[in-house]
Amino acid sequence: LNRNHGTRGEERADGNLTAALARFAVTTRWSDIPQPVVREALRSILNFAGCAIGGSRSAAVERALRVFERYCGPRAASVFGRADRVDIFAAACLNAMSANVLTYDDTHVPTVMHPGSSVAPPLFAWAEAHAVSGRDFLRAFVLGVEVCCRIGNAVSPWHYSHGYLITSTCGVFGAAAGIGKLLGLSVEQMTWALGNAANQASGLVETLPDMAKNLAVGNSARAGLLAALLAEQDFTGGERPLEGPFGFANVMGQMPDVSRLTEGLGVHWELSANAYKPYPTGVVLHPVIDACLQLRDAHALKADDIAQITVRGNPLLGERADRPHPRNGRDASLSVQHSCAIAFIDGAVGLRQFTDACVARPEVAALRARVTMERDAAVGVEEAHVCVRMNSGASFSKHVPHLRGSLQCPMSDAELEAKFIDQVAISAPDIDAPRALAALWNIEALDNMRGVIALLRGC
Amino acid sequence: LNRNHGTRGEERADGNLTAALARFAVTTRWSDIPQPVVREALRSILNFAGCAIGGSRSAAVERALRVFERYCGPRAASVFGRADRVDIFAAACLNAMSANVLTYDDTHVPTVMHPGSSVAPPLFAWAEAHAVSGRDFLRAFVLGVEVCCRIGNAVSPWHYSHGYLITSTCGVFGAAAGIGKLLGLSVEQMTWALGNAANQASGLVETLPDMAKNLAVGNSARAGLLAALLAEQDFTGGERPLEGPFGFANVMGQMPDVSRLTEGLGVHWELSANAYKPYPTGVVLHPVIDACLQLRDAHALKADDIAQITVRGNPLLGERADRPHPRNGRDASLSVQHSCAIAFIDGAVGLRQFTDACVARPEVAALRARVTMERDAAVGVEEAHVCVRMNSGASFSKHVPHLRGSLQCPMSDAELEAKFIDQVAISAPDIDAPRALAALWNIEALDNMRGVIALLRGC
Repeated sequence: LNRNHGTRGEERADGNLTAALARFAVTTRWSDIPQPVVREALRSILNFAGCAIGGSRSAAVERALRVFERYCGPRAASVFGRADRVDIFAAACLNAMSANVLTYDDTHVPTVMHPGSSVAPPLFAWAEAHAVSGRDFLRAFVLGVEVCCRIGNAVSPWHYSHGYLITSTCGVFGAAAGIGKLLGLSVEQMTWALGNAANQASGLVETLPDMAKNLAVGNSARAGLLAALLAEQDFTGGERPLEGPFGFANVMGQMPDVSRLTEGLGVHWELSANAYKPYPTGVVLHPVIDACLQLRDAHALKADDIAQITVRGNPLLGERADRPHPRNGRDASLSVQHSCAIAFIDGAVGLRQFTDACVARPEVAALRARVTMERDAAVGVEEAHVCVRMNSGASFSKHVPHLRGSLQCPMSDAELEAKFIDQVAISAPDIDAPRALAALWNIEALDNMRGVIALLRGC
Repeated sequence: LNRNHGTRGEERADGNLTAALARFAVTTRWSDIPQPVVREALRSILNFAGCAIGGSRSAAVERALRVFERYCGPRAASVFGRADRVDIFAAACLNAMSANVLTYDDTHVPTVMHPGSSVAPPLFAWAEAHAVSGRDFLRAFVLGVEVCCRIGNAVSPWHYSHGYLITSTCGVFGAAAGIGKLLGLSVEQMTWALGNAANQASGLVETLPDMAKNLAVGNSARAGLLAALLAEQDFTGGERPLEGPFGFANVMGQMPDVSRLTEGLGVHWELSANAYKPYPTGVVLHPVIDACLQLRDAHALKADDIAQITVRGNPLLGERADRPHPRNGRDASLSVQHSCAIAFIDGAVGLRQFTDACVARPEVAALRARVTMERDAAVGVEEAHVCVRMNSGASFSKHVPHLRGSLQCPMSDAELEAKFIDQVAISAPDIDAPRALAALWNIEALDNMRGVIALLRGC
């Protein structure tokens, strides 16, 4: 469906896609959701919880908390990994910021968005303030992810490459749909929830290395919650906010494929395209890091002996992460140069490799200066070529066709647990990680989510 | 400056426009603002206050208030026209919604945005919670309007015609800059405030007849307040959020003219292009209504004798307001057919003509059915042609080249006062309108804004 202002009437005739998507969210029962999708929801939620704890001490979260703290309403929800309790809007926002701040969150591969960071936080905030069962929680999460990823599919790849921060611009719909499901909205109200979300959809790629990026993601969680609560009060949000001539897909997409909104609903589930990061960096960097670590291991390479590292990757990698002089740990998580350097020097790429102190290490800076980036449209976003030339004249190269953590090469449950434990150890060592993990895997059996939430709080 | 992803480095070299605009907002003193601009600020604020009171009983505000009420933080600010006190974020949001809900708010003519509705509410909320002098308040308002209208200029006319709700997408910057001025932000912090605002810029034309539209406007006020408060805590928002390759102008504009951001700063003031509506409808309808009222008066036309009304206007009029079957008062305020019918039947076009009851009147529906709309790109947005054919065979036509309330034909102070008094009478008759008006005209002399704010509260 192309943008065409003159066909408002015609488009009305071919069925209301927003309402169809809303109807799916409203009518889907627990038994309609296949067990592998439930399993992937658990993995996503576990990954989210670890990332929210991992990012909970970041400067962005600390600074935002100072503001929210002053204007806080009823303190019904927790900031994961911290002792702070705030109102449910602030909790949704702050936990989304935390989950996203280390760029360690989940990735819906077809869109490169991070659905868990927008969808899970408002559900957790709501579930802490109200009695929500594990199954209701999981179902709302599955449907929230389904809705926002389908909207992302409809506007991809143009939307993100044009400069919209897809995690926030689309995530807001998932937050709205998930909360709308918990609230038991009617189809009409769910449509309004999506319209109220559409009018709050925001976020720009320009601020990717800045805290404003985390604000956009936090805002998507908060705004989605608001969108659904307003819809519950019959606050109207239009009839076709997604596919109408001036709706989300046409205004914030270019030649959007709105058939993706509803095609195969209930048959294909978007959570099955969700992946988890082994490294706390922009996902575009992952195949590069895989290649570096594999080269280092295979040939026992020493950083001091390296004359030059050449990375050949998709132009998107260049646009997002060709950052030779990162100013701090945040910048470094979107730097090809830093990621390569640290992979060869430390042989590990975890949170400890993206601190400000690590960025300042002289030997890291020296090796960063010997990394060059080549853009090649023939290389896919999931792959990378890395070539290392040694001082000896020898050279080694590695092609990674599918990044680790990709759908072809998924993180195992054990790897996800190790990632969770590592983040707890760094950011909230008072949390009992094994108990929290056991509770998270067991969500489906819980009558009330409050028990597991209590285990994610810090002191 | 065209969008060009490849020139990040090059663009950095030609000066930072966001910082230049931020610097202007930070460094402008009271004495730098010409007296006519101050006078126009007073007229805008008076118009805003009346509209906020006028819209304070609308369903959109009632329903949103039900949600905000539940999650309210410290109740430091008032909802104008009502007895409710809420936290400053909710007050900023609700007063912006009220001011915009009747589409009776101010219009920055070059962009067709309504700057007062986004900029004034957070300033009033802040001024009620803190001690702010009249001059500081006015200065912050002038600069907030200046910033958001300049950003609107840079992306107009494509931005709005493409489908972005410019009042909210650009208004958020004005709210951020105005609050940033009251907070005394540094240039770097003001730049971040604009970046934090850019990442919350949202709103779509699709929902124009729905409450979600008011949410977008309310959100622009709330989000701008948040953007500035975060920037005060050194929450970073990037270096070039407005003109960077993936910044606001390039992503949400097409071939934006970013020179408009800073050209003539301090010489030309955007408030001098601000106008006020004589009718509570979309501004695109105003020349049509002028023509109808003038035809009725000039020829003593009776609605019963009218066979056909033909409106010829700019295609934008057709896109926004060709609405033959309005469902309610809200719809009617964006309906060519209703506006023409009611102008001929009642000979007046005020709030009483846009109630649900008025929309349902059989004689109004009958005349609406005899109105046709022709789109003609040769007709400007500020003009309209109306032709009336009578049952007798006679026909009369009228061309309005400049709508009443335009810059060429501005509302007088007395007309603005009458509009204020009418809105108070309908929505909050307990407010002492003459006293409130006297206080509003006198803002410049006030040591503290709390006195005037107390007069805008209802009981």
